[in-house]
Amino acid sequence: MSRRSKVIIVGGGFGGLRAAQALKSAPVDVTLIDRHNYHLFQPLLYQVATGSLSAGEIAAPLRSVLSRQKNTRVFLGDVQDIDPVSKRVLLADGASLEYDSLIVAAGSQSSYYGHEAWREWAPSLKSVEEAINVRHKILYAFEVAERIADPAQRRAWLTFVIVGAGATGVELAGAIAEIARQTLKNDFRSIDPKEAQIILMDGAPRVLPTFPQDLAEKAKRSLVKLGVQVETGVMVKDIDKEGLTVQTHNGIDHMEARTVIWAGGVTVPALGKILAGRTNAETDKGGRIKVGPDLTIANYPDLYVVGDIALALDPNGTPLPGVAQVAMQQGTYAARAIVRRVQGKPKQKDFKYFDKGSLAVIGRWSAVADAFGVHMSGLPAWIVWAFIHLMYIVQFQSRILVLVQWAIQDLTFSRGARLITGTAATDFNFNQELASVAKPAEADKSSVHM
Amino acid sequence: MSRRSKVIIVGGGFGGLRAAQALKSAPVDVTLIDRHNYHLFQPLLYQVATGSLSAGEIAAPLRSVLSRQKNTRVFLGDVQDIDPVSKRVLLADGASLEYDSLIVAAGSQSSYYGHEAWREWAPSLKSVEEAINVRHKILYAFEVAERIADPAQRRAWLTFVIVGAGATGVELAGAIAEIARQTLKNDFRSIDPKEAQIILMDGAPRVLPTFPQDLAEKAKRSLVKLGVQVETGVMVKDIDKEGLTVQTHNGIDHMEARTVIWAGGVTVPALGKILAGRTNAETDKGGRIKVGPDLTIANYPDLYVVGDIALALDPNGTPLPGVAQVAMQQGTYAARAIVRRVQGKPKQKDFKYFDKGSLAVIGRWSAVADAFGVHMSGLPAWIVWAFIHLMYIVQFQSRILVLVQWAIQDLTFSRGARLITGTAATDFNFNQELASVAKPAEADKSSVHM
Repeated sequence: MSRRSKVIIVGGGFGGLRAAQALKSAPVDVTLIDRHNYHLFQPLLYQVATGSLSAGEIAAPLRSVLSRQKNTRVFLGDVQDIDPVSKRVLLADGASLEYDSLIVAAGSQSSYYGHEAWREWAPSLKSVEEAINVRHKILYAFEVAERIADPAQRRAWLTFVIVGAGATGVELAGAIAEIARQTLKNDFRSIDPKEAQIILMDGAPRVLPTFPQDLAEKAKRSLVKLGVQVETGVMVKDIDKEGLTVQTHNGIDHMEARTVIWAGGVTVPALGKILAGRTNAETDKGGRIKVGPDLTIANYPDLYVVGDIALALDPNGTPLPGVAQVAMQQGTYAARAIVRRVQGKPKQKDFKYFDKGSLAVIGRWSAVADAFGVHMSGLPAWIVWAFIHLMYIVQFQSRILVLVQWAIQDLTFSRGARLITGTAATDFNFNQELASVAKPAEADKSSVHM
Repeated sequence: MSRRSKVIIVGGGFGGLRAAQALKSAPVDVTLIDRHNYHLFQPLLYQVATGSLSAGEIAAPLRSVLSRQKNTRVFLGDVQDIDPVSKRVLLADGASLEYDSLIVAAGSQSSYYGHEAWREWAPSLKSVEEAINVRHKILYAFEVAERIADPAQRRAWLTFVIVGAGATGVELAGAIAEIARQTLKNDFRSIDPKEAQIILMDGAPRVLPTFPQDLAEKAKRSLVKLGVQVETGVMVKDIDKEGLTVQTHNGIDHMEARTVIWAGGVTVPALGKILAGRTNAETDKGGRIKVGPDLTIANYPDLYVVGDIALALDPNGTPLPGVAQVAMQQGTYAARAIVRRVQGKPKQKDFKYFDKGSLAVIGRWSAVADAFGVHMSGLPAWIVWAFIHLMYIVQFQSRILVLVQWAIQDLTFSRGARLITGTAATDFNFNQELASVAKPAEADKSSVHM
């Protein structure tokens, strides 16, 4: 019996999982390696951060998704290095795996453009852990404000700044506005959550820079209607415990804000740099690895790079965006290319991205959508958004759960997953924070409103 | 305007929440203090630990539960001390609150009977954080086993010991057996999860010691059918990284088990001891605070203690058990007593516990129930169990979500919430663990089964 060709896939995100699924009936042995035991449906991560969904509802265990695919094993592991000459992948636990073909789909992580210190004060939203952290920050802010008598300090705790007005930033701002104006409406006795200021900020001249102009305009109007303050053309100079220093066209300004969320840029994970070094691949300033039209690195015909970590150009020489659709199409392409090679068939045509459009939700029953070139907004766009998101969620179970959560929430504004859990040192220290602002006696002053 | 009477409730569990709700229309100002921002439906916590439910699905934000109750405010805080003379409650953040009547419903926590070192190797199951930790331990054990070639080590990783055969231990053992035999059936390539050994252990001579004998027997038979090894009359002598040392009637025995879960005894939280000291109250060996038939501490007629932290005796002098039913009935009683005092009415009759029965689920569609003295087992008991649990879950939203999760899971055996998240130092270190057992080359040996 001849040895079957070994395919390793690094990463179980949209690109990696699609590649694995496309190899389902292929005569190859597939190993999918991920640091997590689940595939995460990232487009809904902001709903975990804002207490609409539990993480379990948008994550699917990789083993369970691939359990019936007998040629595939899932490997929980952290890839540290890749040797493209001896064709091996090295894991943090010391294991080393051999491949005949490799698909690197390691995704991206948030980038603070060299200002790593900002991460402490302005968490980002790329992982379950970060989403839970953001959720805690938002909920704690209202809790602290409820306990503070000083109006200036209270205002600082009720000011929420989202840096970055791409889809994630827009969706987050809309959700926080809804929390303040609807979900928490009756929940506090000393503060009125409606006093909260939600500021969406970007250096670009408009929100949703990758969307068509008219939809970006509509999104902005909807955000303003929800009570979000949209500040475009504003550059962040510094972020610290107290707030932000920003540069506007009027000069330098300081904003007091105890909750800052980073929905800014992304960069490739450490593995990207290592792989680029090993293969002498070109990279762009975000560290993405240049691939040819067949999605392989130059001189490494069996080393595919797909998704956010890849720098693939469209026929005009423009880099493809780091979105789920690109990753999924590339994953499928790379899987098919490997099958053809194994079967001795000629190469496929060059990879071509088929752009189905862009979507962003703004609030309850409101979204903007550019679907196959048709521009929509309001409820019709929201229906398209909800339908597409439910369709792309991997597991049937999650689809039902998300649907139920949305249905209840959209009718009642209630958000069931508003839990503050965990006692990790990185977590916000509520007691210490309050001890530094509140005098023991103050607690009694904020009497119950009748 | 005369000053309204101030009621403070410490703890938002079954006892505290019920008390708050019973004060809904009372002419008093209520402050409910809890360290968490949610009420947790503890009876289903084992399902969070075994990946059936997400924590958000069995927790209800206290603010949202009480939002429409205008005489009540929720206070996120950690009660450090109670001064029953000046009638003040002191929080960890330095705040101090005055009360006219106090209801202490601070619950219980797991006890290792003086062996605090065991906690590291055998986590318990009283909080969301602990449940998530147990979930990680169970899931990681299968992951590590999948990667280990040595049969003895593999067996140690596939041995799960639950210490304590009360309702939580029985439910946990049944759930882990189902995970191994059904949920993970097709998920691994090197191990067969069915090889897992699940051992339920107790010093008592039988499982479910508080249940009627016939139901305990039936529960044991169902567990054995599910593949659980039931070891009663076994005393734990030591727990460490490798496993347990136990004393059986045959002498001392050592068991290799990498996953040990503590479903053993409970004790009162630190506040119990402090309060007992301040009031000179009697306590039992578990630290529970003795209360009179009106649920107050002797000489402190406005200081009620309810739920797990209270030692209340039934008319025969037997202590009431630490279960949700007792806590809820006591919470309601204390609230009514306060209202009568405020209204100048005579005292109620002494508190009398109305025991509606006991329930424990064993596996899919199987439970034992003693409802109003009627003994049931199998599917009928399971239906009663499911109905009662759904009914007592506080929020409508959670009820629906739990129902949907159960429906899907019972039909497919799939468990949607099988996530390993978090990177806290206390978490199991997968890479380090594997590095200590696996040789780099071994990874390739465990080839894909075809």
